[in-house]
Amino acid sequence: MATVRSVILAGGQGARFWPISRKHRPKQFLSISSSGESLIQATARRIAPLSGKDHLYVVSNALLAPLIREHVPHARVISEPVARNTAASIGLAALYIEREDPKGVFACFPADHAVKDEGKLLAVLREAAGLAASHDVLVTIGIKPTFPHTGYGYMKRGQPIAGNGYQVSRFYEKPNLERAKRYYESGEFFWNSGMFVWRADVILQAFKEFMPALYQGLMRIRPVIGKPEEAKVTAEVFEGLEAISIDFGVLEHARNCALLAADHFGWNDVGSWDAWAENFRPDELGNLLHGDALVLDCRNCVVHSEKRFTAVIGAQDLVVIDAGDALLVCPRSHVQDVRRVVDELKKRGRDNLI
Amino acid sequence: MATVRSVILAGGQGARFWPISRKHRPKQFLSISSSGESLIQATARRIAPLSGKDHLYVVSNALLAPLIREHVPHARVISEPVARNTAASIGLAALYIEREDPKGVFACFPADHAVKDEGKLLAVLREAAGLAASHDVLVTIGIKPTFPHTGYGYMKRGQPIAGNGYQVSRFYEKPNLERAKRYYESGEFFWNSGMFVWRADVILQAFKEFMPALYQGLMRIRPVIGKPEEAKVTAEVFEGLEAISIDFGVLEHARNCALLAADHFGWNDVGSWDAWAENFRPDELGNLLHGDALVLDCRNCVVHSEKRFTAVIGAQDLVVIDAGDALLVCPRSHVQDVRRVVDELKKRGRDNLI
Repeated sequence: MATVRSVILAGGQGARFWPISRKHRPKQFLSISSSGESLIQATARRIAPLSGKDHLYVVSNALLAPLIREHVPHARVISEPVARNTAASIGLAALYIEREDPKGVFACFPADHAVKDEGKLLAVLREAAGLAASHDVLVTIGIKPTFPHTGYGYMKRGQPIAGNGYQVSRFYEKPNLERAKRYYESGEFFWNSGMFVWRADVILQAFKEFMPALYQGLMRIRPVIGKPEEAKVTAEVFEGLEAISIDFGVLEHARNCALLAADHFGWNDVGSWDAWAENFRPDELGNLLHGDALVLDCRNCVVHSEKRFTAVIGAQDLVVIDAGDALLVCPRSHVQDVRRVVDELKKRGRDNLI
Repeated sequence: MATVRSVILAGGQGARFWPISRKHRPKQFLSISSSGESLIQATARRIAPLSGKDHLYVVSNALLAPLIREHVPHARVISEPVARNTAASIGLAALYIEREDPKGVFACFPADHAVKDEGKLLAVLREAAGLAASHDVLVTIGIKPTFPHTGYGYMKRGQPIAGNGYQVSRFYEKPNLERAKRYYESGEFFWNSGMFVWRADVILQAFKEFMPALYQGLMRIRPVIGKPEEAKVTAEVFEGLEAISIDFGVLEHARNCALLAADHFGWNDVGSWDAWAENFRPDELGNLLHGDALVLDCRNCVVHSEKRFTAVIGAQDLVVIDAGDALLVCPRSHVQDVRRVVDELKKRGRDNLI
């Protein structure tokens, strides 16, 4: 098989991981395991067998470039002047890749997911790359649901293409529990993993069709890549772009979307403190303690306290995260709202806490 | 009326106010109002019209003596070598007072209560002092319940003695809600305020009868008060004493207990973080925030965060208290258990956190 390039999308702020995740050291640079390996390091290591050392790109905010070079020294860093969500990041990466191979296949990865069965992931990615190489399709890795999760987007499987590849008959946003149950029981629905595989020419064609403003901007950048004016032109273009995800901007409109149906390979999008906790084994009462913490009469609590002593008494399903200068207390049912704290801090100009 | 002496019992550790209250700066030295006045300062100021500057005693652990002199410079400090609960403290104070006046009336106050109507308190104390001067009774200030509180001990009113003075027909420990309701509805029950008024000779006689070991110890100390060997003898005696409260040791057994029935004068024993919060006005959702705190979708929460920024999301009836080096998170329903954290820290030898 021809070279499969990999693009790690590392521009996110990880606002749902406040207060540990901060603007200048967002979630992807944090570790969730006792190995000390950061999420982005783990992502790069996992896909190394696919793309080797020479074909890994990381797209991220220019401010984070030094941190990326520290964590993933072999990556080719593509710097965004401002964050404009995943469509713009992928568009920029596509320009770099088509310069090397206009029909080059590349896979896009969030920087901050966890995967347990890495061998299975690689097999899935290789099949997806084959599908993308031989068909003009936009492939999303779809994961067979193991329970009616309300925190993920879903895709419905359409006509088979080849092997585990299917057309996507429709994308669905995060459902409520009732709908999640219907999706789960039908057997036709898959979680949208946020991992994509396609050819540079195919995704650029999709931008041209569904995001013409982004496409025009990319066409301005294309001729100056590697030239002195690249940063200036990219800054001008990005300044005027809307921040739109690849899902909303392209995939929900394109008719050539495919999904690669995968059994669950221990994938976790680590999208919240609750999901983060799933990577660890709690004690027999369901409590997960990190650092200097004491719980009395507690159940299913998550306590992360590396900078001081924390005592929690008589609580259930509570998340307590201390970062030294800032503290979060929140029931597990509200972990998706953590980004609201960051929004509020922005409003109040508390930049040192963001 | 003859001089009424006052004794502030300031030996408590305030373990239920961990992590703000610590062994070397317990609760009574902390402020609960915006005035910055500590609880012990407020107590001393309130009773100044009763006892003047010259007749105020503070009994406390010897280690706290410098702090007491700082907060209440005019107090006569009686140092205990080790804490042996209120019976021993009151016994020691009685020795000092009988040296000046064997039939001297004195009032005992916890150092850490809050009172809103100070004029009413003084009137109540003066009536109690008159009762104690003219009758051989052990007077407890009883407060007419304003609701079925489960956090206080109760006293049942017996035969009238004079004015608002009644015999106590029985003391009752903290009731469950059902019993608290019966007590409240009967109209015959009063909260045990922990404020006592009696003569030195009467309480010493009660010790002789119901706590003979304590009494014998006191009789060893009596002849050496003011002499070089006082500290040594007191240390020897206290070492061998059981730690017993005046309620368990004397009042529940004595037949000459009286109560002075008082209407509620805005008294609060500040016995827990929950009771502490009652001294402040919460916002319209019942949240009480001190320091740098943000709550989103919270109700009836107490957040005290003077050393860092704290965000609480989606919580109800939760207490979050940060002390810089230690943090407490606990539902309001569990605030009485805070002392268990202190016990656990003692067990683990974490002395710097106690």
